[in-house]
Amino acid sequence: MKKKMENPPRSMLRHVLVVSLALNVSFILRIMLYQTQQTHHKSPFSISSSSSTATRRSLVNSTRSDRPPDKERLINLDHGDPRMYERYWRKRGEKTSITIAGWESMSYFSQGENICWFMEPELAEEVVRLHNLVGNAVTQGRHIVVGTGSSQLFLAALYALSPTHHSHQPITVVSALPYYSSYPSMTDYQKSGLYKWGGDAETYDDEKDGAYIELVTSPNNPDGYTRESVVKNKRQGLFIHDLAYYWPQYTPISYPSDHDLTLFTLSKATGHSGTRIGWALVKDSVVAKKMTKFIELNTIGVSKDSQLRAAKILETVSDSCEEEESFFKYSYEIMAHRWRKLRAAVEGNALFTLPNFSPAFCNFFNNYTQPQPAFLWLKCERLIEDCASFLRQHKILSRSGERFGVSPKYVRISMLDTDENFMEFIERLSSIHL
Amino acid sequence: MKKKMENPPRSMLRHVLVVSLALNVSFILRIMLYQTQQTHHKSPFSISSSSSTATRRSLVNSTRSDRPPDKERLINLDHGDPRMYERYWRKRGEKTSITIAGWESMSYFSQGENICWFMEPELAEEVVRLHNLVGNAVTQGRHIVVGTGSSQLFLAALYALSPTHHSHQPITVVSALPYYSSYPSMTDYQKSGLYKWGGDAETYDDEKDGAYIELVTSPNNPDGYTRESVVKNKRQGLFIHDLAYYWPQYTPISYPSDHDLTLFTLSKATGHSGTRIGWALVKDSVVAKKMTKFIELNTIGVSKDSQLRAAKILETVSDSCEEEESFFKYSYEIMAHRWRKLRAAVEGNALFTLPNFSPAFCNFFNNYTQPQPAFLWLKCERLIEDCASFLRQHKILSRSGERFGVSPKYVRISMLDTDENFMEFIERLSSIHL
Repeated sequence: MKKKMENPPRSMLRHVLVVSLALNVSFILRIMLYQTQQTHHKSPFSISSSSSTATRRSLVNSTRSDRPPDKERLINLDHGDPRMYERYWRKRGEKTSITIAGWESMSYFSQGENICWFMEPELAEEVVRLHNLVGNAVTQGRHIVVGTGSSQLFLAALYALSPTHHSHQPITVVSALPYYSSYPSMTDYQKSGLYKWGGDAETYDDEKDGAYIELVTSPNNPDGYTRESVVKNKRQGLFIHDLAYYWPQYTPISYPSDHDLTLFTLSKATGHSGTRIGWALVKDSVVAKKMTKFIELNTIGVSKDSQLRAAKILETVSDSCEEEESFFKYSYEIMAHRWRKLRAAVEGNALFTLPNFSPAFCNFFNNYTQPQPAFLWLKCERLIEDCASFLRQHKILSRSGERFGVSPKYVRISMLDTDENFMEFIERLSSIHL
Repeated sequence: MKKKMENPPRSMLRHVLVVSLALNVSFILRIMLYQTQQTHHKSPFSISSSSSTATRRSLVNSTRSDRPPDKERLINLDHGDPRMYERYWRKRGEKTSITIAGWESMSYFSQGENICWFMEPELAEEVVRLHNLVGNAVTQGRHIVVGTGSSQLFLAALYALSPTHHSHQPITVVSALPYYSSYPSMTDYQKSGLYKWGGDAETYDDEKDGAYIELVTSPNNPDGYTRESVVKNKRQGLFIHDLAYYWPQYTPISYPSDHDLTLFTLSKATGHSGTRIGWALVKDSVVAKKMTKFIELNTIGVSKDSQLRAAKILETVSDSCEEEESFFKYSYEIMAHRWRKLRAAVEGNALFTLPNFSPAFCNFFNNYTQPQPAFLWLKCERLIEDCASFLRQHKILSRSGERFGVSPKYVRISMLDTDENFMEFIERLSSIHL
């Protein structure tokens, strides 16, 4: 590494120039955006509760784009807050607004003929329309169940798929490594007698270990790879397919997904995570009914306001697919740009390894596209055993591989933060050398 | 009864005249409101899943005010959908509307300095302002935790108050009879190892039975009486006070409630049940943090759209308290009118017994007021053992006392449905004689 520093190759010089130009643009933007407004978040969900208030505040400020540049502040890329999309929605202007009068949507109930009695029919219609346009999911012969984000639907699915017999042992819930860091705690926090976390799906043998629920996340969070179920003997398996990232900006849409129980969420599709809307496509009406029952007991339905807003957002996205520049094309370009910047920043730096993806044909874009995941799954090489701590020394907050069931040599880093934070991250990453 | 029918007393004739006049008005209104629009709900949460589709549709139609009069249709007063309030909010007009632009409230996070990191600060402000105006709760020294309705906060509170030690037995959750019908299933549906339903609080002895959580609902759902904790030895007791109905339209506000953990909900305060917003006032910051953690694991926060809408609604209500006719005065008058109608309808009918309440001084109205609960807790007398079945023969759907842990001679009936349904209910109740 030292040698390289003394004698940088041409590619590295070119790279420094590109980064430097980008940083100047970023710096000017930040000066323009700088406001004196004092705004703070507190206690972001993905940060351990032991963080001090001061640390939390500094982490939290890093998600605001109205902060002055500050080399000392932490860039918080630990969670996946999809701030990247804000610019698109500002660009679309007033026509994406919704207005709800004081007397509207006051009832617990929604109209329509759905098993999910609290689902707004216009949301169901827009979900079907968008899946049909994008081609990422079969909706025919499916019941739609709306949830307060896909987290609630994940819990509803565990509840619905668990055996109901009273004497039954809790069913084991497994997922292949590395798995989404929240799966273990979401499965076990209630100490439910219906289901329990069982860890890695690769080592699960249903002949020996009995019935199970396998969580299949594709593209996978954290590593972005396409996945299928991995348990060897699948005779007693039930499946939850979490396809939060199966959208054209993140991965080629090679086929319409066609599973028994599939989860999607507005947060990752359009960036509206504060709206807390997810939906499940469910083949079996008995399962759809049990999921609906879960949500009834958990929250007596799902916010009508957010359902109506989600319907409007999805409608706008579908409409854009019929225009010159679709929402997905716009988002794809940003992701492509970010992944290019990222690869350039670590190119030739033996400290870091990025995942490698193969292009595939995307039916939506009618072209070959590259996977460009919402998270970077970064490996620290050489003697760095704890990648998260190492990056933290450089004021980059990431999520350790340990949280995903694997080695702390890995970290997950959000690729969806604000332009400002992303550029600052690239700048810092570029400057790290042994 | 037969004798009475042959020779009705003067009071009864007067009563028939009043009801008949009211029904004529109601009938004309219904004709005016009749539209041919074919709209259906499905599977209301409070109806057992075994109901046939045809029955469900007929139940469900009963909550619509755009149906023609139909003596055969069921009046569904089983659940507590607060449809009564719609008229008020229509009257207030456009100034109670909110508009949310496509780019607003996209983040998981909220600003502000709260333990509850996903709570919108304007909602917290309006909650405090309203409690201070109404005088129904001490907010000083309290942390506010927002939830997806108070149901989610109830579960969050169970989670937060349960012992964390791994080897610990689940803590027992009790409530005095008759208790809210959903408490047992909400407590037990996950088969949690943290807490379990223990039934009647009156028979619980913590010296013998150990630590417990007592649910104190005041005014009580279903019977409307003011309550305090009832377990005899309270050394090991933890308390959740559910004060959903502690608002001036339902009961005299005698003192500001001052408990460790208190739940409120927009649904019953202002009628916005579709918005799914509740809040907890929590003394202990450790408990507030654990409740926040629960909501993070359950739904990663609470819809921002609904929080902003709730803030607007509460603001309107507080503003109205500074005007000539407050929201609470308006609602109080409707409730008073309905309870008068109800008492007139069963006066002298030995088949039914209503609860009796004593007036008390209401600090909000600066006057003595009567409790006039959101539910009627009706007892069928004589040989009627199953009051719900009996009323169902008269096309009135109520919730059996058995669901509340007591005799089926009792039923709970919503007092908050549309004017149309309420008047139809009064008409049918008046016509029932042995």
